[in-house]
Amino acid sequence: MAKEKEKENGGLVVVEDGLNNNIKGPTNPMVTPLLTDLYQFTMAYAYWRNGKHLERAVFDLFFRKNPFGGEYTIFAGLEECIRFIANFKFTDEEITYLRSTLPACEDGFFDYLRSIDCSDVEVYAVTEGSVVFPKMPLLRVEGPVALVQLLETPFVNLINYPSLVATNAARHRFVAGKSKSLLEFGLRRAQGPDGGISASRYCYIGGFDATSNVEAGMLFGIPLRGTHSHAYVSSFMSLDEIGDKSLRTCNGSGTCEDFVKLVQTWLNKLQCLDSLRGVFGETNQSELAAFTSYALAFPNNFLALVDTYDVMRSGIPNFCAVALALNDLGYKAAGIRLDSGDLAYLSCETRKFFSLIEKEFEVPGFGKTTITASNDLNEETLDALNKQGHEVDAFGIGTYLVTCYAQAALGCVFKLVEINKQPRIKLSEDVAKVSIPCKKRCYRLYGREGYPLVDIMTGGNESPPKVAERILCRHPFTESKRAYVVPQHVEELLKCYWPGNSGKAREKLPPLKEIRDRCMQQLDLMRPDHMRRLNPTPYKVSVSAKLYDFIHFLWLNEAPVGELE
Amino acid sequence: MAKEKEKENGGLVVVEDGLNNNIKGPTNPMVTPLLTDLYQFTMAYAYWRNGKHLERAVFDLFFRKNPFGGEYTIFAGLEECIRFIANFKFTDEEITYLRSTLPACEDGFFDYLRSIDCSDVEVYAVTEGSVVFPKMPLLRVEGPVALVQLLETPFVNLINYPSLVATNAARHRFVAGKSKSLLEFGLRRAQGPDGGISASRYCYIGGFDATSNVEAGMLFGIPLRGTHSHAYVSSFMSLDEIGDKSLRTCNGSGTCEDFVKLVQTWLNKLQCLDSLRGVFGETNQSELAAFTSYALAFPNNFLALVDTYDVMRSGIPNFCAVALALNDLGYKAAGIRLDSGDLAYLSCETRKFFSLIEKEFEVPGFGKTTITASNDLNEETLDALNKQGHEVDAFGIGTYLVTCYAQAALGCVFKLVEINKQPRIKLSEDVAKVSIPCKKRCYRLYGREGYPLVDIMTGGNESPPKVAERILCRHPFTESKRAYVVPQHVEELLKCYWPGNSGKAREKLPPLKEIRDRCMQQLDLMRPDHMRRLNPTPYKVSVSAKLYDFIHFLWLNEAPVGELE
Repeated sequence: MAKEKEKENGGLVVVEDGLNNNIKGPTNPMVTPLLTDLYQFTMAYAYWRNGKHLERAVFDLFFRKNPFGGEYTIFAGLEECIRFIANFKFTDEEITYLRSTLPACEDGFFDYLRSIDCSDVEVYAVTEGSVVFPKMPLLRVEGPVALVQLLETPFVNLINYPSLVATNAARHRFVAGKSKSLLEFGLRRAQGPDGGISASRYCYIGGFDATSNVEAGMLFGIPLRGTHSHAYVSSFMSLDEIGDKSLRTCNGSGTCEDFVKLVQTWLNKLQCLDSLRGVFGETNQSELAAFTSYALAFPNNFLALVDTYDVMRSGIPNFCAVALALNDLGYKAAGIRLDSGDLAYLSCETRKFFSLIEKEFEVPGFGKTTITASNDLNEETLDALNKQGHEVDAFGIGTYLVTCYAQAALGCVFKLVEINKQPRIKLSEDVAKVSIPCKKRCYRLYGREGYPLVDIMTGGNESPPKVAERILCRHPFTESKRAYVVPQHVEELLKCYWPGNSGKAREKLPPLKEIRDRCMQQLDLMRPDHMRRLNPTPYKVSVSAKLYDFIHFLWLNEAPVGELE
Repeated sequence: MAKEKEKENGGLVVVEDGLNNNIKGPTNPMVTPLLTDLYQFTMAYAYWRNGKHLERAVFDLFFRKNPFGGEYTIFAGLEECIRFIANFKFTDEEITYLRSTLPACEDGFFDYLRSIDCSDVEVYAVTEGSVVFPKMPLLRVEGPVALVQLLETPFVNLINYPSLVATNAARHRFVAGKSKSLLEFGLRRAQGPDGGISASRYCYIGGFDATSNVEAGMLFGIPLRGTHSHAYVSSFMSLDEIGDKSLRTCNGSGTCEDFVKLVQTWLNKLQCLDSLRGVFGETNQSELAAFTSYALAFPNNFLALVDTYDVMRSGIPNFCAVALALNDLGYKAAGIRLDSGDLAYLSCETRKFFSLIEKEFEVPGFGKTTITASNDLNEETLDALNKQGHEVDAFGIGTYLVTCYAQAALGCVFKLVEINKQPRIKLSEDVAKVSIPCKKRCYRLYGREGYPLVDIMTGGNESPPKVAERILCRHPFTESKRAYVVPQHVEELLKCYWPGNSGKAREKLPPLKEIRDRCMQQLDLMRPDHMRRLNPTPYKVSVSAKLYDFIHFLWLNEAPVGELE
């Protein structure tokens, strides 16, 4: 494990990670202390004006409902939150702008803003990539109330979409199954540039294998995938446009001087094949030229988009002619991509075609050539394909995945639960919106079979649940819902990712691959009935008996008593 | 008009705008030449390998279907596209990464990439903020095929979400009506940081008045709005927490030494009012303390969130007590915000309460105190509020607006329509997906009443439609759909925003406010039946008779002939 050091440096905390690197700023340089709602500043001023700004407050960040009709969520976005606060500092330009925006505020307030950083803030969080549930705090943030308020909007922004899209990716993985390749192709349809970049990063965490997004590849080391588009195919008119027609054999032992001719020979053999009679006649020559030219450029990685003109009558025969020519020279074609039409039917027909070629021309493995599909796919279409039966090996998924089309927002909120060591509650006409007061500790209790059984929140000073010791878990709001649990394993959920001045050890920010592994392990650990798409069982989230009593005491205390007339 | 100059500067075009400023880079520094799909690079290599990379190609950027079940779209995102290409240049670091990602590519290809910029590209576009329709090109991009392919993904990304969210904003404005204030409050729920920043910018274009997003305010000069949250209210326990209790009168003539006491006096008067008997009793003192402290900080801009405990029994009476105390000192309270419950009912009850106070205490204008509402609002809830009747003056809209919850993506595509002066067509099993070939010119034809009647595309060499001259407008794919039009006004839609080496004049990039004004004017210009929410009439998009014939000639030419057996 890497050594960690922390030192105070002129008021700004410099934290050194791993190989003595400082914690970098946010991936997106637009994430600045101004990336927040104006009311955070007006409140900060009102706190300051009333001498309340340094009062120590505790806020919980949580959501109230799992997305996509499911019963689980993947927690993501933590690293960016920590990178944000590790570098939180107003610039002079920002202060000048704020001053112009809030002319009613006294000068001293801007001096205060200029002076602050997050050295006095503590952040406790669930490990990024964990499976999480409604009402449980994902982050607990402690610090001076005015400052922590300023963090609300960026924290919620930095958690909401990453968690939403990672969950969406995990759900797509669940339906597709572990054996399929899942490729994220969403950049062009994402909600803006870093919608696209974040989608690539957090879909990878949620179980995707690769992305088409080159910048995400460079920033995060995510594997890249891509071939060619319809434009490439239609940019060719004839085989005459191909430049250098020679191709060295795969092992370098010789050179085929006219690869184009070799392809044409193979196409002719296919056209003459009895077993393919009636399947296709003349294929599109622009397409054949495009495929051939692409194979000449990438003989080791020839993957062709076969639906520009007609999949079975042109694209597949043209692909096979090129693939067989490559095979003569010792290369193995990478496969085809279908981007329109009936993917179940076309993939099965394509597989038959490939198998027939394997048999007719004795090319071992040709029948298994990879079929990628990529046309407006989502959870439902994957599920429908599974039910119909298909021969697709890899799915390229874009729009529905990255924009979270089925539910475009997660509703994380940030609620004050304690100030000056006084627990606070936020009431609401809607019971589901009542917040759970107190600085809490959070645990996941595991049962005998290794599954997580229930999450439980306790007051900060209660003794933690113990292995093999019976504990009462209560629904936070419904009196009748409660259960005794004897945990076989107890996991404390909130860890210290930003210790501020507390002197505690700081959890390391793990690399992306580790976060992805954590996510895959966590999903594997869940009881299957929580995970299924149709009517999943809700996972139980509870409070200790003591916390339950306290919530309800506070609630009655704060709620005005009505008068019925 | 500002002077414009262009000069070649070591291969990189430096274009100077307005007051001799260079065109700035993209707002989001993450928008780099790597923000594209890997296949754009593999295609670029295959073009290069085949000596085809410099062939001059023309691509159209367009969408196929208006979003949100409507019949119009607002075009936005152009400025960022131009800022992107004005600064398009690979860094050494990017080249190194690409080389590691594409080890099969020859060195010469990377030398080529290193050498390119967009000085040889031309971009013609619709004016940002215009109302636009399916199938019509929003951008026409001309240039070397390999380079223009690299631009596809960033252009589509930079247009899709801005146009989508601007359209969403315009639709919200349409339902809310012109007299209401519309405030964008979406940052925390947006799809990432620049999802939030872009939302603020493009919702402003679409007709919103202000945002809560401070960074968007600073970057774009958008008016800011904001007050306080529930946390501020629940952070107070009692009136004792208020710091300095004195408040100078508005005109500076005197000082109220104990503003808290003045508030309490007013609350007492309200409690004793016969006409309010039974409406409320004891109000929440934490809330009263929060309101009072906030008013002390912002006496000129006191706007209170009134639903933390109970709107009618606590929030409104507490607000009125503070507002009346402020009134004594010559200040006018800004209003209240409702963030939960039945907004129609609560706003009407609140208005009654305010009017009663105006009457009872003779405070002119108190009855008109601004009521802002902000709980999960969207087009439907605004429409429902209108139907029920309400007293809301301003709407704060977040999640549904900025994530475009009703439809989270616009489907802009980028299609090759010509290469080497040869028109190209992309076929599809789905007629709606067939692209319209040729380098085209695009016009909007206006009728006698001033409304736009129809958009028409012609071949590049056809003579343009003329005022008062009859022209046949044909549906691009349906033979029977055609109409003669005698335009009273003809507007050419595509203007030159990036002339490359063509020597043409470059359209200036207008400031945000001008784009917003354009949008408002364009929306006003539309015939009302295209704009209505229920069953709007589709606006007609057509091609010239000559282009129609050519499309269908090319189509038959490229499509393989099937054999029925």
